[in-house]
Amino acid sequence: MKLLSTSILTVSLGTAAMAQDGQSDPELPRSASSLSQTEIGTVSPALARYGRDTVVEGLWKRPQLSRRDRSLVTVAILVARGQTFDLAHHIEGALDGGVTPVELSETITHLAFYAGWSNAMAAVDVARTVFAERGIAADGLPAASPDLRQIDERAEAARKASVGQLLGTASPGLAEFTTDPLFADVWLRPDLDPRDRSLVTISSLMANGQVAQLAGHLNRALDNGLTEEEAGEVVTQIAFYAGWPNAFSAGPVVREVVEKRPN
Amino acid sequence: MKLLSTSILTVSLGTAAMAQDGQSDPELPRSASSLSQTEIGTVSPALARYGRDTVVEGLWKRPQLSRRDRSLVTVAILVARGQTFDLAHHIEGALDGGVTPVELSETITHLAFYAGWSNAMAAVDVARTVFAERGIAADGLPAASPDLRQIDERAEAARKASVGQLLGTASPGLAEFTTDPLFADVWLRPDLDPRDRSLVTISSLMANGQVAQLAGHLNRALDNGLTEEEAGEVVTQIAFYAGWPNAFSAGPVVREVVEKRPN
Amino acid sequence: MKLLSTSILTVSLGTAAMAQDGQSDPELPRSASSLSQTEIGTVSPALARYGRDTVVEGLWKRPQLSRRDRSLVTVAILVARGQTFDLAHHIEGALDGGVTPVELSETITHLAFYAGWSNAMAAVDVARTVFAERGIAADGLPAASPDLRQIDERAEAARKASVGQLLGTASPGLAEFTTDPLFADVWLRPDLDPRDRSLVTISSLMANGQVAQLAGHLNRALDNGLTEEEAGEVVTQIAFYAGWPNAFSAGPVVREVVEKRPN
Repeated sequence: MKLLSTSILTVSLGTAAMAQDGQSDPELPRSASSLSQTEIGTVSPALARYGRDTVVEGLWKRPQLSRRDRSLVTVAILVARGQTFDLAHHIEGALDGGVTPVELSETITHLAFYAGWSNAMAAVDVARTVFAERGIAADGLPAASPDLRQIDERAEAARKASVGQLLGTASPGLAEFTTDPLFADVWLRPDLDPRDRSLVTISSLMANGQVAQLAGHLNRALDNGLTEEEAGEVVTQIAFYAGWPNAFSAGPVVREVVEKRPN
Repeated sequence: MKLLSTSILTVSLGTAAMAQDGQSDPELPRSASSLSQTEIGTVSPALARYGRDTVVEGLWKRPQLSRRDRSLVTVAILVARGQTFDLAHHIEGALDGGVTPVELSETITHLAFYAGWSNAMAAVDVARTVFAERGIAADGLPAASPDLRQIDERAEAARKASVGQLLGTASPGLAEFTTDPLFADVWLRPDLDPRDRSLVTISSLMANGQVAQLAGHLNRALDNGLTEEEAGEVVTQIAFYAGWPNAFSAGPVVREVVEKRPN
Repeated sequence: MKLLSTSILTVSLGTAAMAQDGQSDPELPRSASSLSQTEIGTVSPALARYGRDTVVEGLWKRPQLSRRDRSLVTVAILVARGQTFDLAHHIEGALDGGVTPVELSETITHLAFYAGWSNAMAAVDVARTVFAERGIAADGLPAASPDLRQIDERAEAARKASVGQLLGTASPGLAEFTTDPLFADVWLRPDLDPRDRSLVTISSLMANGQVAQLAGHLNRALDNGLTEEEAGEVVTQIAFYAGWPNAFSAGPVVREVVEKRPN
């Protein structure tokens, strides 16, 4: 399939390009894109500089969010926005940065529901090339139907009540599928921590400027163990990978949620 | 053109894949993606399961919206979001599911105005491959300038008034082109029913989270014959193909519009 | 790299197609897409007609915005929306229409911050093919670190204050990177006029329906020399290249900003 070979070429070429750049700090991605500094410089020497000094040596070095979390957030952003151009590069970076194949698999599955089936399918098509190249096989992937985590009945009852208030009888199908499979199955799958599911979810919402759903999921993220500092730094990662306006739409929501949290 | 050959490969490969899956209920799409269960399973066995059990055997079997309408809505969602990865697959599914080539042609034309020229051009590039493969030729397409439906003068006067209130003198060009060609030509083209034009329009708005324009077009859709149950089920289709957050932004608007309708 | 060869093929094929169309007014783009009238007609004869009569002979001929500005706005829209399908076509059109390679380079750099790194990288990948074909080399590009314009201390102090009010302490990283590099470096780069940076910025915001940030940047654009008539016509260009709903979300903001400006 043509998209497949494209991915292969992007990956290998990207890797070659990075080698040229000679960046090798295992704590940092080798570059901000599958395009090499040289390739970027043929259009914008400034953008090559910002990619190296501001993004790789600046953003990615900040301690407020771990390299592993930044990679998970960045992959979530690209999948959620349907941006496959650098996706293979960032999936490779995520695997190099401590995100497991199992977690990447669950992230794409989770985002099929939060960012649309077609974005997830395009991501699968990129990921399967990277997985194949790294020899990640079926036995290294999450089960289709594993034993699920225990559901939090009180949180679930509150969630159902708020869905009822939002939708009334306008879309019974949406209400049903939100209960099962989304909250009675997907969210309870064991191979991605609730904290990481929340991290991927708020990244997806921020990446697409979907602030209407952000406050609720951000509170859930903080309940699930994401720290307030990490939440604020996700907004910084969003600025670079989803653009400043989406970060400035998310920032005030993070501020409000954090200020309203009981300490 | 490379994108062309990509589409060809996607289509043929997708078809092969579906054959493997051995789904053959003519009332259902053969799969949820151009990727086969096996291909999806190399990254996420769970996503392969959800695609088969939840999407094809679940969503698409619901009676609240016909298979034909679900296909039209799904194509509209992908075109409106610029998601070409599975577009050939869903255009084929639409043709298999009762959407005519004439209706698909008009849908892409309509969405050039509602989702941007570039999204429509990318869709044309995918559709022309499918049309060529199926021998759909010029004599099977709508005329460039057919006799138009009669315009509803009262509705048109109300529309112009609301545009005037929205824009004042800020953008005379937008006001002019909205009158002609959009409402004095595109909306009056005979080869796609007003009800279907409305269905495509609200699908496009919901797919991109554009709720500001949704209430007006939803009322027009209900005036044009879409039922309230169908409108609510479009939101369910949106959840899977445009993501849960867009569905939850659209749902409350549908509720409000339906509750305010005189019975 | 496959995406590269795709671009090459798109460009050359697109050019061939335009030649067929035989449009040659240097004041107008040769067509509304890299697809020829004939190619578009195999799916929608109507869309071929609208592309020629309404877009090229209609929209692009309007005097409220120069051909050069329309090209800059259109490239900004496509980069900001990550729509690469016709991007090579419109970058070629921009170069033919009076946008310099230096300005295109700065536009892509600017949009890396406003529309996300991945959209900018995908645009670089398309632009480098066009630049290579036209023999645009390093000596024809802006320096990575040129002498910067003087910053407007009063405007900068006001900007920092409003960021502080928006974010509080929720995302220190976003506040820092917004000051430097965004406003202390990118916005002060000399190779794209402040007026054009503002034009590119509001085009990007309108193209993605990001109205929350639009009023502030529109006021800055008018302060930087964009006229109110030009601002209103950008909305018209948005309608065709980013879809009617985004234009109708932007229009009322333009109206409000213009009405509130002291004359």
